[in-house]
Parts: sequence; C-alpha cells; structure tokens
Amino acid sequence: MTSEAEMAAEEGYIYSPPTFPSTPCSIHLGVQAGSMRRGSDVLSTSGGRMRERGRNRSWLLSSIITVNVLILGIALVSGSVFNNIKINAIDLQIFLIVLVILTTAWMLYYTIYTSREDHAVLYKDSHAGPVWLRGGLVLFGICSLIMDVFKIANYVGYLHCDSAVKIVFPVVQFVFILVQTYFLWLHAKDCVQLQRNITRCGLMLTLSTNLMLWMAAVTEESIHQTVVPPEEGNSTHSCDIRAPGGYSSCNCSHSACAILEKAYYYLYPFNIEYSLFASAMAYVMWKNVGRLVDEHNHHSLHFHLKDVLVGPVVGLVMLVAGLGTFVIYEVDVEKGDPGKRDTALMIHYVMNTVAVTLMSVSTVAGCAIYRLDQRDHVSGKNPTRSLDVGLLIGASIGQFTICYFTIVAVVGTGAMGHLNALNLAVSLLTVIQLCLQNIFIIEGLHREPFHEDMHRASVFTNPYVLQAQAHRDIHNLPGTFMETKLSPALTVHSMHVAPSGSPLPQRHRLTWKRRALKEICAFLLLCNILLWIMPAFGARPQFDNTIGAEFYEFTMWVAVVNIGLPFGIFYRMHSVASLFEVFLTS
Amino acid sequence: MTSEAEMAAEEGYIYSPPTFPSTPCSIHLGVQAGSMRRGSDVLSTSGGRMRERGRNRSWLLSSIITVNVLILGIALVSGSVFNNIKINAIDLQIFLIVLVILTTAWMLYYTIYTSREDHAVLYKDSHAGPVWLRGGLVLFGICSLIMDVFKIANYVGYLHCDSAVKIVFPVVQFVFILVQTYFLWLHAKDCVQLQRNITRCGLMLTLSTNLMLWMAAVTEESIHQTVVPPEEGNSTHSCDIRAPGGYSSCNCSHSACAILEKAYYYLYPFNIEYSLFASAMAYVMWKNVGRLVDEHNHHSLHFHLKDVLVGPVVGLVMLVAGLGTFVIYEVDVEKGDPGKRDTALMIHYVMNTVAVTLMSVSTVAGCAIYRLDQRDHVSGKNPTRSLDVGLLIGASIGQFTICYFTIVAVVGTGAMGHLNALNLAVSLLTVIQLCLQNIFIIEGLHREPFHEDMHRASVFTNPYVLQAQAHRDIHNLPGTFMETKLSPALTVHSMHVAPSGSPLPQRHRLTWKRRALKEICAFLLLCNILLWIMPAFGARPQFDNTIGAEFYEFTMWVAVVNIGLPFGIFYRMHSVASLFEVFLTS
Repeated sequence: MTSEAEMAAEEGYIYSPPTFPSTPCSIHLGVQAGSMRRGSDVLSTSGGRMRERGRNRSWLLSSIITVNVLILGIALVSGSVFNNIKINAIDLQIFLIVLVILTTAWMLYYTIYTSREDHAVLYKDSHAGPVWLRGGLVLFGICSLIMDVFKIANYVGYLHCDSAVKIVFPVVQFVFILVQTYFLWLHAKDCVQLQRNITRCGLMLTLSTNLMLWMAAVTEESIHQTVVPPEEGNSTHSCDIRAPGGYSSCNCSHSACAILEKAYYYLYPFNIEYSLFASAMAYVMWKNVGRLVDEHNHHSLHFHLKDVLVGPVVGLVMLVAGLGTFVIYEVDVEKGDPGKRDTALMIHYVMNTVAVTLMSVSTVAGCAIYRLDQRDHVSGKNPTRSLDVGLLIGASIGQFTICYFTIVAVVGTGAMGHLNALNLAVSLLTVIQLCLQNIFIIEGLHREPFHEDMHRASVFTNPYVLQAQAHRDIHNLPGTFMETKLSPALTVHSMHVAPSGSPLPQRHRLTWKRRALKEICAFLLLCNILLWIMPAFGARPQFDNTIGAEFYEFTMWVAVVNIGLPFGIFYRMHSVASLFEVFLTS
Repeated sequence: MTSEAEMAAEEGYIYSPPTFPSTPCSIHLGVQAGSMRRGSDVLSTSGGRMRERGRNRSWLLSSIITVNVLILGIALVSGSVFNNIKINAIDLQIFLIVLVILTTAWMLYYTIYTSREDHAVLYKDSHAGPVWLRGGLVLFGICSLIMDVFKIANYVGYLHCDSAVKIVFPVVQFVFILVQTYFLWLHAKDCVQLQRNITRCGLMLTLSTNLMLWMAAVTEESIHQTVVPPEEGNSTHSCDIRAPGGYSSCNCSHSACAILEKAYYYLYPFNIEYSLFASAMAYVMWKNVGRLVDEHNHHSLHFHLKDVLVGPVVGLVMLVAGLGTFVIYEVDVEKGDPGKRDTALMIHYVMNTVAVTLMSVSTVAGCAIYRLDQRDHVSGKNPTRSLDVGLLIGASIGQFTICYFTIVAVVGTGAMGHLNALNLAVSLLTVIQLCLQNIFIIEGLHREPFHEDMHRASVFTNPYVLQAQAHRDIHNLPGTFMETKLSPALTVHSMHVAPSGSPLPQRHRLTWKRRALKEICAFLLLCNILLWIMPAFGARPQFDNTIGAEFYEFTMWVAVVNIGLPFGIFYRMHSVASLFEVFLTS
C-alpha cells in the first residue's frame, strides 16, 4: 500500500525534493537570512498547502472506505460460501445492490457535473485508458449485458418460489454496466481538478464495487463448477444451490430455464474480466485525480511493418497453428471420450511447449540486445508507466500461481506418464517465460524512444517547469535541477545526431539492433495473442487434466484456477499492449 | 506493488521532477541552444544513469525472486494442507530448510563483509528499526528459540519412527533466528551503498523466508487447533497429524513429549510475531538500499510527562482495570465451566466496550483539535514515514477482518442473547475506533513538530541539495524549487516566533491545544498497550465464544483468527510507537 506522501509526489503537482529527514536539523548554509525575508513567497504557497492537506485527508478517507467495503464484502462472501445455513446469499446480494446503486449514482453525478461545468477537465492523461483497455471493456461489457438478460429471464421462471432480490440484482447490474462503460469510455483519461475529495471517494467506491462484483462472480462460478461437474450438468441439481435454504422443490415455470442457465454460465468469465478491466481503469483514474499533465502531449511514433519480416511471419505461423490445435482441442474435449481427451491434451501441451520455448529464447535474445544497446534509460517519474509496470507484474501473479500449483501437484504425485511430463514441462517453461517477458517489457518501457524528429530538441512541458524556467536564467545555472531534467533528451540527441551531422537520412535505415528488437516484439506480441485467445475462449486444460483436482481438494483447485486464470488473461492482453509500445519505441 | 520508478524516487537520491510525459514533445522554450552545448554536463551524469539502470535491474530481479519463492511456497503449503495423502509436509520442510540456510549464509556474508570493509555503511536511517521493533524482535526471538529447543527435544522422541528432516528443521531455524536477530539488531538502520544488487536480492530473500516461515507457522497452528480442540487435548491424538501418512502407531520414546508439545504450541504465537517483525525490518532495509540520508539527523525532542496529567491517569486506570479483568478471564476460562466462561466473556466484552468507546471519543476530540490547529503539514517526501503509514494501515486490516467476520456471524445468526449483543457492540466499536485512530495517527505524523529550538532556522541537509545550492545564488531565484523546500521551516518559524518576538519564554507554556493533544496521545497509548497485552498473552474470546466457529466452518474461522490476530497485535504495538511519536511532536 502506498502512503499519501508517495501519492502526493506521484500526482506530480507538488515538487518532491530529494529525501530529507522529517526533523529539521542544524544550519549548514548561509542562505537562511535572505530566504527568510521572503514572507510573501511563503504566503503564496499557503494555497498549495491547504490543497495538500485536503489531498491527504481525501486520500485517507477513500482508502478507509475501500478497506471497510472490501473486508465487509469478504466476510459476507465467506459467510455465504462456508455457512451451512446459506442464509447470507440474499444478504450478500442486498449489499451488492446497495453498492452498485451508490456507484451508479455517483457516476451519473460526475458525468452530469463535468458536462455542465465549462473547463471541468483541463488535463487529460493520454497514457491512461488505452484503446485495448477501453475496447476490451466494451467487448466484455456487452457479454456481461447479455449475461444479465439471460439471468433475468431465468429468474423470472423461479419468481413464484424464490426471493425477488435475485431478480433485482441483474436488473441493477445491467444499468450499472451501461452507465459504467459509458463513464469509463468518456472519462478514463481525466485528471480531475474540481471536487477532488468527492471524486477520490467516488472512484474508490467504484473500485470497491467492481472488486466486490469480481469476488462474487468468481465465488459463484467456483460453486457452480464444484457442485455441477461439466460431465453431469442437469439443471435440477444446480437448482439446489441457487434456491435458498435448499428448496430443491423450486422448479422453473418456463421451459427455457435449462438452456438459459447453461448459456449464462458460459458468459461468466467475460463478466469477471469486465470487473477486472473496470477496476484497473478506476484505479488509474484515482491515481490521476489532481495531476497536472500536458494536454498537448501526443505520440509522434508511427507504426511501420515494412521494416520487419521474420518476427511477424513466424508469429503468424504460430498463431495459425495454435488456433488450429485449439479448435481440435475444443472439439475432442467436448466429445467426452477419455482417450480423445488425452490426445487433445497432449496436442495442446506440445503446442504450448513449442510456443513458450520459442518465446523464451527470443526474449533472452532481446534482453541480450538491450545489454549491448547504448540507448538511454528514461529518467524521471511517470505515474502511468509505474502503474503499467505494477499491473503487469501484479497480473502475472495469477499465471505464476496456476503454474506453481501444477508443478507441485505433478511432482507430488510422481509425474508418471508422458501427459504429466508434458504438463510439468509447460508449467516450468511458462514460469521461465513469464519472468523473462516481464524483464524484457519493463526494460523496453524504460528506454528512451528512437525519435524520427530527433533533430528537434525537446523539453517536457509542464506548468511547474515553465513557471520555474520563466523565473531563472538557465545559462547561469549548471545546478543539478535543470541538468537532470534536460539530459535525457540531450543525450539521445547528441548520441544520435552528432555522428551523422544530418539526422534525416538515418530515418529509414534501421540498425540491426533496432530491427532485431522489432522482430522480437512482433513475434512475442502474436504469441501472446495466441496465449490470450486459448483461455479466453474456453480452453481449460486445468480441469480436463484431472491431476490438479485430484491432488488438491476440488474446491481448492477450482478457487485457484478461477482466481488465477482471469488475471492470466488480463496479463496476456496487457503484455500485447506493452509489447506494441516497446515495438514502437524500439 | 510499487514500481521501480517510484522506488527510485523514494530512495531519494535521484531528483524527481514534476510529472512530465514520457514522450518528449515540441519546443516551448528558447533555452535549448544554450543547454545543448553543455556536453560535459551530460557526460557527468552518465555515472548516475548507469547506477539507475543497475537499480532498475536489481529491483526487478529481487521482486521476481520474491514472487517466485512466495508462490511456490503457497503452493507447497496448500498442497500439504489440502492434499489427502499428506506427502508434502516433508517437501515443505525441505524447501524451508533450503531457504533458511541460504538466508543465513547471506546474512553472515553481509555481516562479515561490512565489518571488514572500512566505511561500508556511510548512511544510517535513524527512523528505521526503532527501539520497540528491535526490542520486540529480541523478545519474540528468545521465545522462538525456546520453542525450537522444545521442538528438538520432542522430535528426538519420535526419531525411531519419523523422518529425520523434522529434527533438522528446528535446528536450522534455531541458528537462523540467532543470526537474524543479531543481523537485524546491528544493521536495521543501514542504507546500503556497496554491492547493492546482491544486497537487494539478499534482503528480498530474507523477506521471503520470513513470510514463508510465518505462513508455515500459521498453517501448523491452525491445523493443530482444528484437529485438537482445546477441551480434548490428548497427545496421542495430535500425534496423528505430525506423523506422516497417518502413522498413529508412532509413539514417543520419552515421557516428556506430551508436556513439551503443549509447551511449544503455547510459544507458536510468539514465533509468528517474530516472523512478522523480521519481515517488516527486512522490507524497510530493502527500501533503504542506496538511499542517501543525513547521518547527523537526530531528534531534538524530549519526553516530558509533567505537562500532562488527566490522560496518563485515566489511561493507567484503564490499564489496571483491564489487566484485572484479563486475569479473571484467563482463570475462569481455564476452568472449562460453561457458566463461568460466559461470565468471563461478558466481563471481557464490557471492559473492551468501555475502553474502545473512550478511545473513540478522545480520538474524535483529537481530530477536532487538529482541525482547529494552524500547525503546518509536513511537506516533502519521507520514505520512512510513508512506510510507517503503510504498515499501520496494512496491519489494521487484520483486526478489521476479525471484526467484520464477527459482525457478519452475529448478525447472520440473529444476535440473540446479551453475550452476542455485546460481541456485536465490541466489534462495531472496534471498527470505528480503528478508522478514527488511523486518521488521528496519520494526521499527527504529518504535522510539523513544535520545536523548542524554533529560533534557529533550519534547512534539511542532503548531499544533492548542498551540491545544487553551491551552484546557485539564492537571492536571485524566486523559483518554485527553493521556495517549496524552505517554506515548511519558514512558516513554522514565522508563525511561532513573530507574535512573541522572543520564542524562548514560550518553551514551557503549552497552549491548551498542545496539552489536550498530549493528554489524548498518552491516554490512547496506554489503552493500546492494554489491547496489545490481552491477545498477546493468550486471550482468545474468538474461540471461547463459539459463534464464529459455528457460523463459518471451523477451519475457516481458525484461519481467519490465526492470520488476523498476529497482525492485530503488530498493529497495537505499532500504534503505541506512533502515538509516542505524535506525543513528542505535539
């Protein structure tokens, strides 16, 4: 958990000096007498000071709200799962309905308020809410809306013998998803300056609500899988769970129930992803409240595919081959024949082993090129990049968890048979690949981009910098302050321009290092798309191979996979976006 | 998870400018021509740049090590708990032994290396490793050593029919605790500058090892409580768990086994606390690697009790009354008579309700005084304070969890009877008290201290600041850079000195606000000691009142309490230390 001091500095509108102790100590400089006389300067900062105090307070308040909502939610979820009486399923839904209504109300308020107020949003963070995140949000949002429609239609059939709360929840959630998708699509890039305290709390409420919906969905999905194994999915059995207090006598009044129920359980994973995406975007917005960034900031990088060939071609071959095996896998597993299933699993594992091995090898090559590369590291703080890196590492934990649990299970049972050996190999190689890919992407994101308009020296614009620079004469000041800020652009410039004299002829001649990096990025990008598609569209080798469910208790294994897999899918999508950025800057 | 960019800025030795986008954009200033000519300046920063690159890499590497060790550990722990074959208990111990040996080796290497090298540690963070943390570490360390001795003696009795690994582990852990306590006692304040990459990885290994030991101890404690309820603790029964593969035929060869086993299970909570303390200290050391702080930094604040009276007196009354009820509670519960147990629980709850209510009321008063108070907020970044705040909020989550789980259980079962009503009241009030106390402490830590030597203007010393200041003439520069840094000290000065003319006579006349704050701090401090002592020395109303265990499954409830309670104890100790700091600065 980051503290508000870190927060404040990250938000970027207060200057954070090099570390100094909180207790001031004795005099070391002879400048105090002069500086103390500047009483007017001191007064002029008191506005900023008040603002800082308000920030501390709203940061604290919004954190406390989140902690309380989440822990109460965890207690309710645990109560509804582990409690034998199952009295709490309705309580949990009422809690969720209240949360969802509050959040929807706040989002509507915010949208109306900003649309009425002139210049309500002065700054936008161009890195926040990238197109893949917003696109994914809309895609998964549509699936969630369909799921809610199916749920409503299904519960209507049980209305005569079940609680009405169960039908209220999908209705409220339907409205919530509509409003939230609209809100995040429009406002994901906002750096809110007005009503910051309310906005901070509202965003944290949004984050908590989405995390609670995620938790509830994961739990419901897990219970569903635990009680009704895929083989024997008859609808009367699953009715036991949904009906409160074990009324197995409650039967659906219309005939579509069984189909609807099956259909909406297929849509659950999309709803889980939707909550994760919305949480990530709400968190980024919360971090951006009060931040001052340049509105005119834009990428000057363009996407050219003509410089690269090997990477995309090999990647496409992998993608097509992977999708082919994926279709075979799905068809064979659906048949339910154990022999066919083993063959399908074997093909799937072999495909994954090949993909992950090639990815690891190319990533090692990429890291080696970074070692040789003389390009500068980006200095200075960038909250969006920090967040990106945090989300990347955080999301990879889901995949790590599934892999290590598989490794322990396979090793624990002795790893007999070629299926287990392959499973072990895939898991081990995936762990290695994840570590290497994280290193490669993070290294790549921290390199200065190769600019095509390198002949223009550039300075990052920021109101504070401009203000500071208006006050001082730069030629007389070789201090660390300006030097540190200017040096990245300068170094790249001197490195890139000085030897050639004229930078423009270099434009289309890529060095072998740049070209190799681009090839590697393109290849990794396509492979990550493959590894994203397979779990996102229903491949569940973790359940089709029964070793995990046999080794751990089945409930435990279902929980691990259901929590880990959505993060894994999020990780692959995030990697694709980050690799695209690395591709552009290389 | 914080990213390395945040890390770098927190470490305080790179200047972090106000936020600017990572892609440089077009020219806004006319200073480039002049600044570009300063090629020598650019070269002079390349050393820092290399260092930054190394930091990024070692940050990433140490994070990846931690993630991998922890997730593998979680998988092993889950395997050993949920697996029916219980084949993994030995595997887990082998994993722990390897981790412990590696960590011990690194700590010995570090200690020897720093003692041989002259000027190995140039900077010490005086806020890191405060005396309560190091004192607690030694205290809990001694208890853990005793526990290990008991364990060794106990396992010797089972050597003829059980794995020898079980005896190796406590032996190795014994050495580890000795080395680690010595290491952390000596080096907790170090800001390591030499061999940073190795040190970062070593510290993260230490952190992972301690978290793994914590996890293993919590799990073992929970299994112990689940299988052998306190009422029917016969040693042959508990032998079933420890022996692998369910050899209940394995009997102890000496007669002291039953006593030893009972004794070392009493010492488990201390070992759990020890791991938490060591983890916190290793994390702070990791954050401090490469930080440059002023060695001469010291508190000029002194502890005077003569200014306050009401707070300490009421606090002491509460403490004595609380310890009295605690003794009654322990004696009555030990007897095992249900009627007596209910009376004891009621007294315990009433005592807690009174304490928590009084604390909440006084905290509200304290927060109100802060609102009236004109004292300035500390501006600027202080990594140690950020950490303190993070640990405070993080540790409070444990207590929050237990409270909310209790609330849900009591409300879920209808809250019948006065015992349940009291339980609910205590839980609700504790949640309120935790929120208020967190706000109060964090507000207090962020206020400028009232200094007795306020007549001396003071500037924080830092090599970079000094370097920067040597280069510039401050009188000509009304820019934001210097102004922001100097203003806190200046504002306090002008506020405090200007009205009186001479600050010295004010020294012993406390304003009513300062006095009230000190009274409140003293009272809260003593109450937190009370709330620390009761759980630390064995009060477990969560188990004595059976509602939690009945509502949730027993295993679930044991896990919640065993994870939450040690954090609660840590939170109370941390609060005592923070309140003491707030008392001094008020």
